[in-house]
Amino acid sequence: MSLLVVGSVALDSVETPFGSRDDVLGGSATYFSAAASLLTKVSVVGVVGDDFPMADLQFLRDRGVSLDGLDKVAGRTFRWKGKYGFDLNAAQTLDTQLNVFEKFEPKLSPQARKAERIFLGNIDPELQLRVLEQAENPRLVCADTMNFWISGKRAALQKLLPRVDVLMVNDGEVRQLAGESNVLQAARAAMRMGAKAVVVKRGEYGALLVTSENTFFSPAFPIAEVVDPTGAGDSFAGGFLGLLDRLDASDLSALRQATVMGSTIASFTVEQFSLDRLRDLDLGQVRRRFDAFRALVHFEELPAHFG
Amino acid sequence: MSLLVVGSVALDSVETPFGSRDDVLGGSATYFSAAASLLTKVSVVGVVGDDFPMADLQFLRDRGVSLDGLDKVAGRTFRWKGKYGFDLNAAQTLDTQLNVFEKFEPKLSPQARKAERIFLGNIDPELQLRVLEQAENPRLVCADTMNFWISGKRAALQKLLPRVDVLMVNDGEVRQLAGESNVLQAARAAMRMGAKAVVVKRGEYGALLVTSENTFFSPAFPIAEVVDPTGAGDSFAGGFLGLLDRLDASDLSALRQATVMGSTIASFTVEQFSLDRLRDLDLGQVRRRFDAFRALVHFEELPAHFG
Repeated sequence: MSLLVVGSVALDSVETPFGSRDDVLGGSATYFSAAASLLTKVSVVGVVGDDFPMADLQFLRDRGVSLDGLDKVAGRTFRWKGKYGFDLNAAQTLDTQLNVFEKFEPKLSPQARKAERIFLGNIDPELQLRVLEQAENPRLVCADTMNFWISGKRAALQKLLPRVDVLMVNDGEVRQLAGESNVLQAARAAMRMGAKAVVVKRGEYGALLVTSENTFFSPAFPIAEVVDPTGAGDSFAGGFLGLLDRLDASDLSALRQATVMGSTIASFTVEQFSLDRLRDLDLGQVRRRFDAFRALVHFEELPAHFG
Repeated sequence: MSLLVVGSVALDSVETPFGSRDDVLGGSATYFSAAASLLTKVSVVGVVGDDFPMADLQFLRDRGVSLDGLDKVAGRTFRWKGKYGFDLNAAQTLDTQLNVFEKFEPKLSPQARKAERIFLGNIDPELQLRVLEQAENPRLVCADTMNFWISGKRAALQKLLPRVDVLMVNDGEVRQLAGESNVLQAARAAMRMGAKAVVVKRGEYGALLVTSENTFFSPAFPIAEVVDPTGAGDSFAGGFLGLLDRLDASDLSALRQATVMGSTIASFTVEQFSLDRLRDLDLGQVRRRFDAFRALVHFEELPAHFG
């Protein structure tokens, strides 16, 4: 079992109706590895600037995350600034400073090349392809992307998709990719473009797993106090791939459990700012909420004489 | 077992990206009774004008729906005109003509007063209260409402809520009623206002059942060809109460099954314009899709050694 994530390690400034935080830990690889490391061994490939407080990542090291592939280079760390209104579903981006991330060129160590499972965080699809060129023979590749790449780098994305086992995007992204408003049809169109399966993340509304065989739906766990939705998608991905790696499986049953595990860990992430909730989370709490998901969606069969 | 619905019987003009229809059958009581009559005996209380094509309701009579409480009076029938964009979640109302509905004063026959279960469609809460004054001793009351009444008739609504077993509203309505953006907290606030349980309808995202004991979530069934969402909410209500009446139960297990039955029948409604799909639907098809819901949300437990 070995899981590699390539993505951003960032400093976020976030404002929600429940408060604000400046220059706190963020980034797709950070949320992903905090989530996945509850379940399996994770290695990070990314880059930070010389202003980055490495001590903030100590809790990841303590959970066995390898940061050997996290380069520290001269310059400022990637920064994102965003704001959420009372409808916490969508962030308004106030500022993005790529800084050292602008020249990020992922390099995989001999060890990282052997990773069995890879998560390609939301970066330029050309870089995502270059990661896969270095990987030796991954058993499962999962990729995220966004509107910026779908419109600006479509050719590279189309080269990437046939190498992707699970495309993991939100409603709007899969609609844009497919040019199709119905989410189920959009997911199927993404599969015709090459992705073997699609997970559509729908924020507080849950996640839809679409494969060639069937469709599975996991709700989001109803949380009474959502404080900061930042990182929910990447911790979903971390829970998803973390479970597949731990189970060493990717059959339909495992993919369904992984979708629920993604929803489970994401539901913790949003309870506090930044990675604060993930930092203190343990596997026992995760398991109890996973089991609570079963209760949340459970209903009895109809009587036999019915219909 | 006996189920009464009080609400509108209307002529709708609808435009969606998939076509348009003029002056077709619509209205909350119509959708509700078409759905519920697949499961139990339904009586309708409502009003239409002398322009109304009564023959269009013959299929309801054929399913055992009593239309004795549907008054036909001089004047034009209630008309609604709406349009949906590619995001089919919300209708834009282009025109509402109350017509004969403006002076609607629900009168319950001696038979109707004895109804065991009552659905109060989305009408003036003062009229909803007057229905309950006439009812003898219903075992379950379910009520819908909307933004117009929440802002304009809040006092009447507050009188109504303590008499309501299940408040059935959409996301925006429960948020507005409670003055609270978090849906779970908003539902709990509605329960403090008197409703014993709340069902939050979330369109293509499913439905949330909140009771004092726990929370249940049913997804919407993923439909690849949504043609017209009109009436989804009222057919959800019809499936929900139809099943409770048929099972003659309202314990938590029945409420969960009813929520799924609501989602099941609503998922058929949206496949065609107006009541076209409901007209041809039979209980065998309903049961197969109900069972498909179980497959849609099913996932295995985690291994025992986990967490």
